Parts: sequence; C-alpha cells; structure tokens
Amino acid sequence: MTETVGFVGLGIMGGGMARNLLRAGFMVHVWNRTHARMLPLLEAGAKGASTCADLAGKVTIVVVCVSDTPDVEEVLFGAQGIAEGACPDTLIIDTSTISPQATVEFARRLRRRQLAMLDAPISGGSEGAANGTLSIMVGGAAGDYDRALPVLEAIGSRITHVGPAGAGQLVKLVNQILVVGTMQAVSEALVFAQQGGLDLEKTLAAVEHGAAGSWMLIHRGSQAIQRNFRPGFTIDLQQKDLRLVLEAADELGVPLPVTGQIFQLYRTLQARGLGDEGNHALIKALENLAGIQVGT
Amino acid sequence: MTETVGFVGLGIMGGGMARNLLRAGFMVHVWNRTHARMLPLLEAGAKGASTCADLAGKVTIVVVCVSDTPDVEEVLFGAQGIAEGACPDTLIIDTSTISPQATVEFARRLRRRQLAMLDAPISGGSEGAANGTLSIMVGGAAGDYDRALPVLEAIGSRITHVGPAGAGQLVKLVNQILVVGTMQAVSEALVFAQQGGLDLEKTLAAVEHGAAGSWMLIHRGSQAIQRNFRPGFTIDLQQKDLRLVLEAADELGVPLPVTGQIFQLYRTLQARGLGDEGNHALIKALENLAGIQVGT
Repeated sequence: MTETVGFVGLGIMGGGMARNLLRAGFMVHVWNRTHARMLPLLEAGAKGASTCADLAGKVTIVVVCVSDTPDVEEVLFGAQGIAEGACPDTLIIDTSTISPQATVEFARRLRRRQLAMLDAPISGGSEGAANGTLSIMVGGAAGDYDRALPVLEAIGSRITHVGPAGAGQLVKLVNQILVVGTMQAVSEALVFAQQGGLDLEKTLAAVEHGAAGSWMLIHRGSQAIQRNFRPGFTIDLQQKDLRLVLEAADELGVPLPVTGQIFQLYRTLQARGLGDEGNHALIKALENLAGIQVGT
Repeated sequence: MTETVGFVGLGIMGGGMARNLLRAGFMVHVWNRTHARMLPLLEAGAKGASTCADLAGKVTIVVVCVSDTPDVEEVLFGAQGIAEGACPDTLIIDTSTISPQATVEFARRLRRRQLAMLDAPISGGSEGAANGTLSIMVGGAAGDYDRALPVLEAIGSRITHVGPAGAGQLVKLVNQILVVGTMQAVSEALVFAQQGGLDLEKTLAAVEHGAAGSWMLIHRGSQAIQRNFRPGFTIDLQQKDLRLVLEAADELGVPLPVTGQIFQLYRTLQARGLGDEGNHALIKALENLAGIQVGT
C-alpha cells in the first residue's frame, strides 16, 4: 500500500468503513470529535490523532464521514482542520452527504492550497458500511478518482465516477428524490389497499415483480405491512437530505412539486416525535390523513 | 379440454390473448363490436359469433376484454348481451380494468341468473398479451378460480388469486397508484439531474440498482432519457385507470394527495395533445413546469 489513510468521523457509518480499510491492509489513522469513539478502532489496529490537522499531517489520503455541510467545513477549514495540517497533494475523499454547491466551493478552496478533493457520498446504510457493500457516487477529477479507487473499493461495492466536483453530491440527491418519491407511491398504494379491505401480503405478491415494482416496495413495503419501522435510514436524516435537495433545486430553479410535499409530510412525523423511525414510516403520515388508527 | 371458450373484445390486448387460447388447444368462439377485427382470428381457427348472446350460448367460459365499466355492462347485460344467451353455470372472466364497485354489482346480478364471474384485470401491455406473459390479479370465488386456471395460464404467467369479487380490480388500481407514483419520482429526479448538469446515463447507472431502483426507473427512465415516448401504455389509458383509482378512493374515503396531483399533471399533457404517448411522458409535464424546452 503506497497510501496511508486518515479517517475523520467514526459514527455508525464511518466506524464500519474505517474497519474495512484496516481489513484491506491500509495503515489507518483516525480522529473523532468524541474521542471515546476512537477506542474500538485503536484496538483494531488504527492509530489515533489529537486533531484533524495532526491526522492530516501523517497520511496521504483523508476520508471524511460527518453529518452535514457545516461539519465538513469545520473539519476541513477549522482552526485545527485538515487543510491546516495536510501536506501538498493530499487527497480528501468526502463521503458525507452535503450541499453540492458548497462542495464545489470547498474543492476550489482546497485546490488553492494544492490539496485535492473528491465528493463521494455513500448509500447502503450501516449494514452496507459494515459489510463494505456501499454504493459510492463520486465527483471530481479523473486522476484523483483513479488514485482513490483502492480506498473506495475497500469500503464499497458499486462505485461510479459520475462527473466533476459536486456531481457525486448531486447524484446522491437524485437518489434521495427517487427513494422518497417511491416510498410515497408505496404509502398511498398500501393505505388505499388497506381501506379497500385487501389482504396486503397477497396484494404485494401480486404487484411487486411487475411494472409497479421497486426496491422500496419489496423491502420497505413489506416491513410497513408488518408494522416494523426500525430505521435503515431515519426520518431525521432523510429530512436533512431532502433539505439539501430542495435547496439545490431552489438554486437550480427546478420545481419539485411532489418532493416538496413529501418534505412537509415527513415534517408531520417529526412533529409527532417519530424522527428516529425508518423513512418508510412515511406511510404513517398518509394513515393520519386518512384517519386510520393503527397503534404504533 | 372440457371447456369451450368465448372471447369478447379483440383489441390490441384481446387479439393476442385469444390467439394464445387457440395455441393452447382451446376451441375458441370470438366476437368483436367491429366485426372486421374478427377475421384474423377466424383465419387462425376461431369460430365467429354474430352477437355476445349468440357466442355465450355456444361456450362454457367467456373471457371479456373491453375498455371501461360501461363497455363491460353493455356486453354483459345489453339486449344481445352475454347474460341473455349464456347457459347456467357459464363462467365469465372479465380481464378489463373497470370499477371495483361496479364489478361487485355485476357479479351479484350474474349470480342471480346462475352465472359466475371472476374479475381478472391484466398487466403487461400488448407485448405481454402477445407472449402470454401477462400478470393477472383475480377476484372471485375459489372454485371459480380453480376452474378458470387453465384458461388464465394460457394467457398469463403470473396469476394471483387476491380475494373475493372486486379484489382483482382493487389490486389492479393499487398497481396503477404504484406505477404513476414511481414515474413521478423518476420524472422529478431526472429533471433535477438534467438541470444540475449531470450526465443522465451515468446518473441512472449509479442509482438504479440500489434503494432508489424500480422497474419504471430502469425501463421507462432510460427511454425518457433517449426521448423515446412510444407507448407501452398510453397516457389516455393511464388516465382512465387513474379516474377509477380516484373514484374508488373517494368512495373508500381515502385521500391520495400525490396520486391526485399526478392525474392533474397527466391532464396537462392531454391538453397539449399528447394522450397517445407512453405514460413515461409524464416527465414532459415536469419539464414544462421547469421551463425546459426539449423539442419532442
């Protein structure tokens, strides 16, 4: 391995990803705002850093996995940030889902300091992070993508270079429009079926493999029928991503009438304290509109 | 074969289905409002009938494949209708997509005359009808379903008994809610992607096999990108089905906020004279809202 990897952000996604980098044989340095989260990785063979700047000075590639645009800005450009400590030609791979516009700006600021960045948001949940089967949508220069590929292949299984800086983030937002729009269709269909007195299992079996079929119907529709709303991806995180979608659409001048409506429907669930349920709990918003009481 | 089959309605779907019944070895009698449509079937070995009543008197099972609720009522209960000519215990299989409530009523009226009916709406387009690979969602009594199965297996490949009379029609409407809702998500996602300057082929490749994936995205999304709007299923027929959805939802007291909105968006395409394009031309309604001029 010619690259030494730094990892910033050891949450539910980052922890699994850092572990897979160790398994792939990389020397890995880690940093997390809450230092206690670093301990399991240190036990697994990683080295700890005291600040992002400290970490950046010891590695050639830094993978970032934090929550939102301001968090990425802080770890990149804060007083003890990556840009402060990194040597020239260090490559930063941001796997967070953040603003595409901010991403373009961050890449430009880093380039002025001879630092390269790829936006590489991930999809596939904590299970995908643990198993190394994440989908990764990568924006940035082709040379940087080629350099990053061994690292990306250690954490994901479906890796696509979709365009220049920011394009990875935009494709991730496209992904989220599809996910919530499909779940809205599933929700309206299942509430209609239930009020029509249909057997929901048989209904699902009859339609899921034809033109009506989708990943959300097959996986989340059946969980909704079983009243299992454990999160693969929480409503609160979904709303963060939908906010990014609607902000980007606003800047691009694109009306998204149904996506905007779904954001408001999810808001009703947050208002009822359900923000930590899975994003397929969207069906509860439709049940509420239909006056259905289904317990949980 | 112990059953002789009558076939009423030799349109783009019914023609292929009647042909597959002949291929399966059934003796088939046919009738169509426009008699000229019967000729190719007669050449293929079917026998012609002068009226629905005439046809019904010569067979033990009648398959109906016409357009809408009033058409089914006319061929069943009109002056020269099936009910006039049918012998007791004749089984009627209605493959049209019509009102679930009317279906329950038709089945009740037929039962008073010792005639049985299954609602068995189909999905899969003219290609599925020609190849015998239709999905069929069947409502009615279990004994009638068992009796119909050899006939259904000659015209379809995914056959599900979903419940009592009317349940087949309800499940078909569930199917249509899913189809249009998923296409709406695909449309908003692709318009957003295009205005964001993304490569649409790469974007599709990056998202279609994950949680964002659906039959509509994979099949109709790629056609939309290629500006191929040839109909698998036309907007005009889609609107007929959505009207049935919204009428049934109104009777059931179920609000379908997004499905209702999609009906209105399709209406804008009909108003522009695009009713005979494929249902994936829904994206043109979103492009119009976004002020995009894309030629065709």
